[in-house]
Amino acid sequence: MSTVFPEDSVGLVIPQLAQFDEPLALACGRSLASYELIYETYGTLNATASNAVLICHALSGHHHAAGYHSPDDRKPGWWDSCIGPGKPIDTNRFFVVSLNNLGGCNGSTGPSSLNPLTGQPYGADFPVLTVEDWVHSQARLADRLGIAQWAAVVGGSLGGMQALQWTITYPDRVRYCLDIASAPKLSAQNIAFNEVARQAILTDPEFHGGSFQAAGVIPKRGLMLARMVGHITYLSDDSMGEKFGRELKSDQLNYDFHSVEFQVESYLRYQGEEFSGRFDANTYLLMTKALDYFDPAAAHGGDLAATLANVTAQYCVMSFTTDWRFSPARSREIVDALIAARKNVCYLDIDSPYGHDAFLIPTPRYITGFTNYMNRIVC
Amino acid sequence: MSTVFPEDSVGLVIPQLAQFDEPLALACGRSLASYELIYETYGTLNATASNAVLICHALSGHHHAAGYHSPDDRKPGWWDSCIGPGKPIDTNRFFVVSLNNLGGCNGSTGPSSLNPLTGQPYGADFPVLTVEDWVHSQARLADRLGIAQWAAVVGGSLGGMQALQWTITYPDRVRYCLDIASAPKLSAQNIAFNEVARQAILTDPEFHGGSFQAAGVIPKRGLMLARMVGHITYLSDDSMGEKFGRELKSDQLNYDFHSVEFQVESYLRYQGEEFSGRFDANTYLLMTKALDYFDPAAAHGGDLAATLANVTAQYCVMSFTTDWRFSPARSREIVDALIAARKNVCYLDIDSPYGHDAFLIPTPRYITGFTNYMNRIVC
Repeated sequence: MSTVFPEDSVGLVIPQLAQFDEPLALACGRSLASYELIYETYGTLNATASNAVLICHALSGHHHAAGYHSPDDRKPGWWDSCIGPGKPIDTNRFFVVSLNNLGGCNGSTGPSSLNPLTGQPYGADFPVLTVEDWVHSQARLADRLGIAQWAAVVGGSLGGMQALQWTITYPDRVRYCLDIASAPKLSAQNIAFNEVARQAILTDPEFHGGSFQAAGVIPKRGLMLARMVGHITYLSDDSMGEKFGRELKSDQLNYDFHSVEFQVESYLRYQGEEFSGRFDANTYLLMTKALDYFDPAAAHGGDLAATLANVTAQYCVMSFTTDWRFSPARSREIVDALIAARKNVCYLDIDSPYGHDAFLIPTPRYITGFTNYMNRIVC
Repeated sequence: MSTVFPEDSVGLVIPQLAQFDEPLALACGRSLASYELIYETYGTLNATASNAVLICHALSGHHHAAGYHSPDDRKPGWWDSCIGPGKPIDTNRFFVVSLNNLGGCNGSTGPSSLNPLTGQPYGADFPVLTVEDWVHSQARLADRLGIAQWAAVVGGSLGGMQALQWTITYPDRVRYCLDIASAPKLSAQNIAFNEVARQAILTDPEFHGGSFQAAGVIPKRGLMLARMVGHITYLSDDSMGEKFGRELKSDQLNYDFHSVEFQVESYLRYQGEEFSGRFDANTYLLMTKALDYFDPAAAHGGDLAATLANVTAQYCVMSFTTDWRFSPARSREIVDALIAARKNVCYLDIDSPYGHDAFLIPTPRYITGFTNYMNRIVC
């Protein structure tokens, strides 16, 4: 059956569930009594468990990073361009673990899951999580899989924040960290965009204070708006211009408020509507809060170099020239702090027209640099 | 009484209303049978009416550009930094006219006005307007005031678009054009942000297809979101960072979705809520559409230089280094087209940390350049 898939694909993959019954203490002061994490693996764990790579996902990501769930799938996992045989994260060498984060809506325990104490969906009762909480939950998954130390933890955007946090929280459990299109903390502008997205959801009358499942509705309008504004920040001005310009949807202008005049409007509405049908509003809020709260240097008075004093991992930091969500300057803050802390760091600033989304797109220098860096990892 | 105002203020001003009963044909194919424009004037029109300056406002602007409406006013008009005795637009020399555009919600006829044919507010029935429609309506106001030719037409952002359009539509009626922090047309990203704002309003259940006045409600949520997302684009990442950074609202994090954690969230919510209480949702839609539609070069196959072939005005184009809504590159498109069309143009790219809002803020080089350019105008 796998012959239907491209040769450099990991092929058919089957998600797995891990159940955890030991309570997980959270940064907010609460704890989760039990939870499930859904994950996929690609490649084979070697005898010494020294070839394991953890993939951390971004805001709207999930465990399905590579391969196909069925021969009929039109699209592979979200990072299939970078994970597979002969790809940067080479499944001929590495055992790759990709999970849906706690609080997600793709199979791991999250706000849309049933709260075992009430038999109802958690909804607004689900605790707000932080990047550090995720790292702790991922460490338990590593334990479960017999992985004492990751060869590498890899992530883009919010995923890069988790990779960085891993090296701080569990310095002995990560040999390499690939921190891609990320930032050491959000800027005021980043928080502001998140706040617009949150307000769009929170003020949707069908949000019902987070208990929309109980009310039998979905805050589609809020989710749509949140996704639309998010999507603008994922693309560069130039890439939107090249993709859509001012191309009209029909031959003439309609001069009304509801018609779609320009292709870019049509594209954004489609993206927003599609997203609102598949993503959980409480998870979206939770993810934006985890982004806002991420600030590992805060515990050291804002001194990121001091925060990184005890890390032992080696780092590869990558940024993309037209990314304005997490601009190259934000990646250089991480690089500078690592240099100040006398750590081993490579930095690639990659020319790409694709804005923040560039970390998902296989431009040649990105793929080459990514591959070469992964090749230095001895398993 | 005027002694309570600063010496360089135009002092107390009283808005005036002009009623127009000759139908105005519009770009959309419809026409307005009659309409009113509210405006203010500062300074004195000279005997030959050669010292008149028209101020064109931006998306949420209005006629009250300078001075005070009462001795108790806490704030002067929106461009008081640039209009007054000894200021760039020096009211000792110039007679300044500032109106609220047709379709506005500050006293000129707009969607919230009563439709004389029905006795009900226009609401969604108000025609969609273009920058060219505004220029025609402003020309009628000039006629009414006995101004055959403006010494200068001046505007920032959407106001700059009107200034540019004036020189194209009525080349004999404008001697100088000051086009500030503007663009020759919107980019796909600009349209995308407008579309988010529109969808926020259009999907607000209290919008009622634009007939919210008849329903006795206001789409406050939609207007709030529209303003919040707009506001982010008016500020630079750096200026937001300097103003708010990651400063917390209280001593500790709340770890919930509804609390305000960061100062920037508090600021944005305040801006959104304040705006939603004073601005008309249909006017907001109309203004964003006028922005989207503005593309004077479209009539010449996209060739802006050809579009400007017959203009006779002299131009001053100004941009601000951290403006990412209409970046300096957009102003240079106008400059390049004017040079290609062999027109007289000065260009100032001004170092400012304030983003798009910089055109409202009296930074020294801006004020000096603006003043010096206005001083070359012989009345």
